[in-house]
Amino acid sequence: MKRSFIREILESIDNETISFAGGLPDENLFPIQDLQKAASKVFENPKNLQYAISNGIVPLREKIANFYNKERFFTKPENILVTTGSQQGLFIIAKYFQNKQIIIEEPSYLGAVNIFKMNNLGMQPIYLDHGGIDTQKFDEVYQKIKLAYLIPDFQNPKGSLYSDSKRKDIANSVLKYGGYIIEDAPYSELYFDQKSQSISSYIPDNSFHLGSFSKTLSPSLRIGWIRANEEIIKQLTMIKETIDLHSSGISQYILDIYLDDNSLFENHLDQLRKAYKEKMEMFTSALKQELQEFDFVMPKGGMFVFGSLKGFDTMELVRKCMKEKVVFVPGNQFFLDGRISDEIRFNYTYSTKEQVSKGLRTIADISRTLK
Amino acid sequence: MKRSFIREILESIDNETISFAGGLPDENLFPIQDLQKAASKVFENPKNLQYAISNGIVPLREKIANFYNKERFFTKPENILVTTGSQQGLFIIAKYFQNKQIIIEEPSYLGAVNIFKMNNLGMQPIYLDHGGIDTQKFDEVYQKIKLAYLIPDFQNPKGSLYSDSKRKDIANSVLKYGGYIIEDAPYSELYFDQKSQSISSYIPDNSFHLGSFSKTLSPSLRIGWIRANEEIIKQLTMIKETIDLHSSGISQYILDIYLDDNSLFENHLDQLRKAYKEKMEMFTSALKQELQEFDFVMPKGGMFVFGSLKGFDTMELVRKCMKEKVVFVPGNQFFLDGRISDEIRFNYTYSTKEQVSKGLRTIADISRTLK
Repeated sequence: MKRSFIREILESIDNETISFAGGLPDENLFPIQDLQKAASKVFENPKNLQYAISNGIVPLREKIANFYNKERFFTKPENILVTTGSQQGLFIIAKYFQNKQIIIEEPSYLGAVNIFKMNNLGMQPIYLDHGGIDTQKFDEVYQKIKLAYLIPDFQNPKGSLYSDSKRKDIANSVLKYGGYIIEDAPYSELYFDQKSQSISSYIPDNSFHLGSFSKTLSPSLRIGWIRANEEIIKQLTMIKETIDLHSSGISQYILDIYLDDNSLFENHLDQLRKAYKEKMEMFTSALKQELQEFDFVMPKGGMFVFGSLKGFDTMELVRKCMKEKVVFVPGNQFFLDGRISDEIRFNYTYSTKEQVSKGLRTIADISRTLK
Repeated sequence: MKRSFIREILESIDNETISFAGGLPDENLFPIQDLQKAASKVFENPKNLQYAISNGIVPLREKIANFYNKERFFTKPENILVTTGSQQGLFIIAKYFQNKQIIIEEPSYLGAVNIFKMNNLGMQPIYLDHGGIDTQKFDEVYQKIKLAYLIPDFQNPKGSLYSDSKRKDIANSVLKYGGYIIEDAPYSELYFDQKSQSISSYIPDNSFHLGSFSKTLSPSLRIGWIRANEEIIKQLTMIKETIDLHSSGISQYILDIYLDDNSLFENHLDQLRKAYKEKMEMFTSALKQELQEFDFVMPKGGMFVFGSLKGFDTMELVRKCMKEKVVFVPGNQFFLDGRISDEIRFNYTYSTKEQVSKGLRTIADISRTLK
């Protein structure tokens, strides 16, 4: 296995680096006091420090199930498997489907690509446009393969949001041919206008819906989940148990206690959406000012703005920028073939306004030396 | 994959069950107040809630490395990979060696057996006696296979402690032929008399030493580690990153802060050893009183007492006991061939004195009905 260049970028980051690279939440927006209160309560009961069951503590699974029920996507605690981040959720699903073929979006999340490689899944990429993939093409390929990995909400890296009609098209293909989609949804709550209906809700028994607290509360908790049909959850639980017995009980109990007062989480999400929308607007207006040649589509949520800098090999560009302590992820990292690309994924949630202006100006200055 | 019978036993446990089954620490001995203090401090710094590096936060790896250095087993933070419990550590190593052959002790830890099956490792069992395996036999098999999984300290399930000479013999085979041993050491700190020298310390570049905070502090934290040579740790880190990005940062920071005052941990370990020794003495004297036919060797540490109840199929016995709400693990669960066995693994760390007397009496009563 090759170390990813993204890792190389992330590891080059020190206190002086301006980073538009990782998908990092804004640290100033973590609800640290509420989580601290919850954490303190966890240690009042020694049973919370004991081994827990592999599929996740019951009250947390009940609360996660209720996220779905509120949206009329009928879900029981038995439909939920708590995982060590949604990264592990995806690993477990890939292990379950090992050696099969799978449709992926092109470009796609590199962490998923690595998981599929490790579990020997043959990847069939379908080009992703800003409103979603071509669903006619999807139907053709899916008919044969019957397995797909999609990130319909504010995709990583492209920021795309699938239209409702494309969501229905995809669900229809699944209903027609059987099989499964894996719907990765870490950014779904980070919408600016309104939440889209998940594809999984149309096909509850033929889908794996991956959720996470990493982008909404704190990545450090390492708690995500899989929603799937109950029989499959049992199979996945056996894999989970073999991999790490169970996810951090401390993290699970912190979340469970924090979520006891549901308005706390709701209010936090509202704040987060508002703050990230402002950060997106600040970032894109800085882009228009400092890096006018960058061609992009305004995100409707999530953490990334993706676009192209015509005439540049952005891999070459980032290598030079790294020396000046400004980093982003060049587009070629998200394609299986490692093609030369003029594209860039910028994260806009992590940096401050001053860092954004300074960072983008540095990139613009360096790009001029490459012309 | 088959669900293990152990899982079935563990899931049958409710508030009224007397359990000698799981390898559970005594909940009354968790240092809850000190961990609570540490947890509270974690949330004072929002950076602790952000994504962390995959191999584990630096200060915790430094502290873990120092556990080894104190015993003159030279170790740098770069030799350590923090994992989601030592279960995940073993999974990562098994993934690294997938499709190879591996020596295991017979009987052995079922969680390890499941990991090896999942990663398609061919297991070659060697009979385990109370002072360790036959090292001449080991030398013969190891010469061909060059990979072994051993639990030299208070083995699960058998409680065996390897003699120093057997440890040296094994290290010599590794030096002679090359290859690696995986030394699983979750119980090493739970000695009653003195700590044994790890086999890994004789062969620092040819060993994986697995450690854990689950048996010493709290299983709920899900933090263990691998100590291995630096180059291999880099390879394992890539696997770790693909599986779950990193282990709970919250758990890691709690441990790091808790371990800042090292005397806290040292004193806790001293208390734990004393308490578990007393529990072992209480349990074994209750055995002698209530279940006189049970033939066992007195443990020198760890969590289990293992022995045989001549003339009984202990699988049949436990099924009957489960109905009366007393559980233990029948010996056949720890053998690859699922043979009929008259052996039992009792955990003595979890239950109270009253539960022990009552539970063992119930087992004795039921055994008489089977005669």
